[in-house]
Amino acid sequence: MPELRRDPAKGKWVIIAKERSSRPSDFKLEFEEPAGPEKCPFDEGKEDSTPPEIAAVRTEGSITNSTGWIVRTVPNKFPALKIEGEIESRGIGIYDLMNGVGAHEIIIETPDHFAAFETLNLDHASKIMWMFRERYLDLRKDPRLKYILIFKNKGRRAGASLEHSHSQLIATPMVPDLVKIELEAAQIYYQYRGRCVYCDIISQEIHEGKRLIFENENFLAITPFASVVPFEIQIMPKEHSSDFGEMRFSEMKTLAETLQSSLRMLIKAVPNVSYNYYLHTSPLDNLCIPHYHWHIEIVPRLTHLAGFEWGSGLYINPLPPENAAKFLLEAKNG
Amino acid sequence: MPELRRDPAKGKWVIIAKERSSRPSDFKLEFEEPAGPEKCPFDEGKEDSTPPEIAAVRTEGSITNSTGWIVRTVPNKFPALKIEGEIESRGIGIYDLMNGVGAHEIIIETPDHFAAFETLNLDHASKIMWMFRERYLDLRKDPRLKYILIFKNKGRRAGASLEHSHSQLIATPMVPDLVKIELEAAQIYYQYRGRCVYCDIISQEIHEGKRLIFENENFLAITPFASVVPFEIQIMPKEHSSDFGEMRFSEMKTLAETLQSSLRMLIKAVPNVSYNYYLHTSPLDNLCIPHYHWHIEIVPRLTHLAGFEWGSGLYINPLPPENAAKFLLEAKNG
Repeated sequence: MPELRRDPAKGKWVIIAKERSSRPSDFKLEFEEPAGPEKCPFDEGKEDSTPPEIAAVRTEGSITNSTGWIVRTVPNKFPALKIEGEIESRGIGIYDLMNGVGAHEIIIETPDHFAAFETLNLDHASKIMWMFRERYLDLRKDPRLKYILIFKNKGRRAGASLEHSHSQLIATPMVPDLVKIELEAAQIYYQYRGRCVYCDIISQEIHEGKRLIFENENFLAITPFASVVPFEIQIMPKEHSSDFGEMRFSEMKTLAETLQSSLRMLIKAVPNVSYNYYLHTSPLDNLCIPHYHWHIEIVPRLTHLAGFEWGSGLYINPLPPENAAKFLLEAKNG
Repeated sequence: MPELRRDPAKGKWVIIAKERSSRPSDFKLEFEEPAGPEKCPFDEGKEDSTPPEIAAVRTEGSITNSTGWIVRTVPNKFPALKIEGEIESRGIGIYDLMNGVGAHEIIIETPDHFAAFETLNLDHASKIMWMFRERYLDLRKDPRLKYILIFKNKGRRAGASLEHSHSQLIATPMVPDLVKIELEAAQIYYQYRGRCVYCDIISQEIHEGKRLIFENENFLAITPFASVVPFEIQIMPKEHSSDFGEMRFSEMKTLAETLQSSLRMLIKAVPNVSYNYYLHTSPLDNLCIPHYHWHIEIVPRLTHLAGFEWGSGLYINPLPPENAAKFLLEAKNG
């Protein structure tokens, strides 16, 4: 069972995933090469190399845990948090700990080992957005869970260990720190100005135009004013909504289009870039709030986090986001 | 001039260091090899390849900016923040920004290109600790500065671009977020229990013994209960002190011994490991406080930060710190 431990001096939790390693030599110092299709457990026809599927979008007539799927969600074989068990909080002297209860799922985005999310056809990409929403709505019924984070690791420098296109979902028994910080900052802004800070960002960005890289009926993508890394991108629904689960069926397509277009620009501007993205939405015990606004943050992994960033939380970004926006738009049109 | 920008939705500042890059191709995707002594600007005899020195420990009779130094501090040639100018805060619509005023210095730890900090003789290593304290005490006279962070990047994966042993110092015009979070958590603990949380950690760690890896007259080193990465190490003075500048002359040697011993164990357990360390002390406008305790955190860079960590701030650590302590002690004795 993984363990959640709290640092009494920082107030922060950490997941100690004991089962994942044992000896110092388990920590490889060099990046591993992607395995190629031979060893890939996610390819079509190898459905029994993953735990049984939780959900899938399938072609008509195809059978659960066999071929014929388009998007497939399975439990992570090596979960950071486990779905079984009670939370049970306890103390050892001044330290607090909890059982590592939660969920860890893999959304396999395509049966094709070599397909990339950003070049899938729009209908297929929309089905992945649909899967995100389905898993989110299903898991939030579990009262032990307080937050659900959907995210993606693409490329070795972004922490991906398998090259087959997939995203992940981890549900946690507490609201993660970075989400809490956003919620608090947004609430302070709301108390002072009476408006959602994200809605204000959206109107300023549309008005200024200098950091806007994509827009459709429902969504927009910007390079944020205070981007912490080069080519950071943020996607937001134009209409106020704190709860990702509220997204309408018709918006799956416009969201997929926004995410695909943003990633295509990024990859054209910086070929072979590794990146992460994650979806921030409201916590499960407070879904509809006037001061928060769900969004996706795309974090390209081009620079190294060094001691200053680790020790301060203050990032040094060598690329002004106005220039990033210009390069991304040039890449799109070039 | 670098620029400080605040994210209104997160309340976080970022340094936009415009001068550091211009085109997308400036972001190299692969790690660079260390340059070797040929191109190293820090070697003895190349004193004119750095800006003029700010401070140095020198052999008797040697001349400023020439050979004969033991430890040498120079301004960073490509500073993240610049010492000249006024802070000047201003707004653009909902966004806030400030001039990037601060200090960025390099402490060159040895004239020898190939020497490593952890194997320097104790007297030499103590002089580096002395230099940290000297620069800290000097810079804190500047009323524009609110915080001084001393840190080290060792190895390519830790963000080091030069292999010659050196540490750095960045002084900022605001207290960095991660320090604020520690100060707040420590204050909450103090309000509730009337004691410094670090002092309580020290007594529990000495009592339990399971995570204690080194101890001398003045300092101890532990693998923290809620370590966020494998082989994380924390060094603390045993006696309560929030202000690093208060460190006595006699403690330079015991601090150097603790830091060297900790790093030697780490490097023996995981050969060629990249690591960062940084020194957390009280903010400059509130130096002596009962609830805070200065300390050094050593962060080995063995695992990848992935999308989950970026999006949540919740780390997944595959190595329980009790096992890390055991491996470090085995490495020492083995």
